[in-house]
Amino acid sequence: MLKAPDHQVAGHQALDGHLGPLVDDSGCFYKPLQNDERGSKEVAFYEKFISLTGIPSRIRRFFPIFHGTKNLEASDGTGMHPHLILEDVVFGCMKPCITDIKIGSRTWYPGASEDYFQKCISKDGNSTSVSLGFRVSGLQVYGSKESDFWKPNKKIVKSFTPEDVRLVLRRFVSSDVVPGIDKDVTPDCSLASRVYGGSSGVLAQLSELKEWFEDQTMFHFNSCSVLILYEKDLALRGKSGGAEVKLVDFAHVVDGNGVIDHNFLGGLCSLKKFISDILTDTNKPLSEACLPEMDTSADGL
Amino acid sequence: MLKAPDHQVAGHQALDGHLGPLVDDSGCFYKPLQNDERGSKEVAFYEKFISLTGIPSRIRRFFPIFHGTKNLEASDGTGMHPHLILEDVVFGCMKPCITDIKIGSRTWYPGASEDYFQKCISKDGNSTSVSLGFRVSGLQVYGSKESDFWKPNKKIVKSFTPEDVRLVLRRFVSSDVVPGIDKDVTPDCSLASRVYGGSSGVLAQLSELKEWFEDQTMFHFNSCSVLILYEKDLALRGKSGGAEVKLVDFAHVVDGNGVIDHNFLGGLCSLKKFISDILTDTNKPLSEACLPEMDTSADGL
Repeated sequence: MLKAPDHQVAGHQALDGHLGPLVDDSGCFYKPLQNDERGSKEVAFYEKFISLTGIPSRIRRFFPIFHGTKNLEASDGTGMHPHLILEDVVFGCMKPCITDIKIGSRTWYPGASEDYFQKCISKDGNSTSVSLGFRVSGLQVYGSKESDFWKPNKKIVKSFTPEDVRLVLRRFVSSDVVPGIDKDVTPDCSLASRVYGGSSGVLAQLSELKEWFEDQTMFHFNSCSVLILYEKDLALRGKSGGAEVKLVDFAHVVDGNGVIDHNFLGGLCSLKKFISDILTDTNKPLSEACLPEMDTSADGL
Repeated sequence: MLKAPDHQVAGHQALDGHLGPLVDDSGCFYKPLQNDERGSKEVAFYEKFISLTGIPSRIRRFFPIFHGTKNLEASDGTGMHPHLILEDVVFGCMKPCITDIKIGSRTWYPGASEDYFQKCISKDGNSTSVSLGFRVSGLQVYGSKESDFWKPNKKIVKSFTPEDVRLVLRRFVSSDVVPGIDKDVTPDCSLASRVYGGSSGVLAQLSELKEWFEDQTMFHFNSCSVLILYEKDLALRGKSGGAEVKLVDFAHVVDGNGVIDHNFLGGLCSLKKFISDILTDTNKPLSEACLPEMDTSADGL
């Protein structure tokens, strides 16, 4: 009983006869191995990662559980194809709000082909990767009303400016969701403290991840994404919404050779600062929160 | 009574009729303004930086004191030329060990000219900038004997590999100094705990700087260097050697626009990890310190 996932926000999709991931009804996510070396590199990463004994569970939880690989009927109808068997991170969610954020100011890495380098350097410069150290690759947000839903298409996501990203990360934790990137509608950020804040919220999880990245020198996570997700209905009812941070997409992970992943770490710190700015701002009295940006940032010094 | 500095390790030098910095006998360092916009941008940075009221003194101490600008007879004999008047950070030192480390995996930045971009991307890829997030731009080290001294020329410094950088940062805090990057001579790192360690050592200073960079969103310090310096004779006599970290070269600083400097921060964290690895290693019993790299790094997880 395999089908295309209901809540995929980025990457290749198993629709209209294309090759894409599938899910079953017991919580597994089947990701087709890409035919070139990317597929085998992602398998190699997962296999190495699960074999390492020194990684604490507080870090392991950021990675989808890996159950091996399996040959399955591909979604594009071309016959059997090897798939990674992973944890379906939104299994059981009714209204998961999800954003996929590709981390790093560069997605290329030493040793990549000239073609790949040129493709990446252009994408990085034409997105917010170079300026922010990360870019939003996709998102979906539910609102408080049954019909409220926003899932911008690829073209819109690709055109996000730094200001759009700031707005998107605010709208992501608001009860009011308007479709489109309308700058005149100020998000209420009413769920910010529940989702981003708190001892087990997104900011706390990003801090834990950051601490690991300040020390780990085994892997460089090139072109890897952070998923941020929570269940809208839970959050609207005053619960934390089970906010979770997950790392996904390991087709370009390379050996760290004893050096920390400064590219990922820098981008992660930048994302963390964006999230913490939202929390600072929403915890302020309205009068202060409306101060011009320049003054607010000078305050922090 | 102006003269070329005795202890300059990187950058243009006021020798053989070239334009370069000068020092006087009262602790001032005169840096000629570059003729293009870089000169005026560096002045503008210093002027803005000293005008900011919110920067605590524990951060200000990382920046050379700025005393304004002055027209002086240029070192290249071409007549009067504007100079920045800065603190001479090695004033009064007899045997200053210095290294100039350019921070960031990229030295270019959005908005720079295509020419500058191409020059930078090539230099970054051909040095350790991309792989380590920083590169050594120059150094000088004194040893315990009067004649021991190592100041590799530009060509050698440019050819440093990641392994060379690791060796150089060890030799930088060793009592035995051999000229040349001879991998068969293992540095004793006898001054590591005094210079890199301790509550006011280099690692503690880099941590303080890092904390500021996790929060400050006013400036992006493109192509800026960290100087690490200490006085060899003091360190050899068991003192801390007054180890200091300074930031220099602000000709490519741009407005942070509310975003942290993830490029600088990533490189700074990588340098910090290199320094902390040296401290960890030199504090270990010899038997452990000799374990293969791979095992050592897995230990930390």
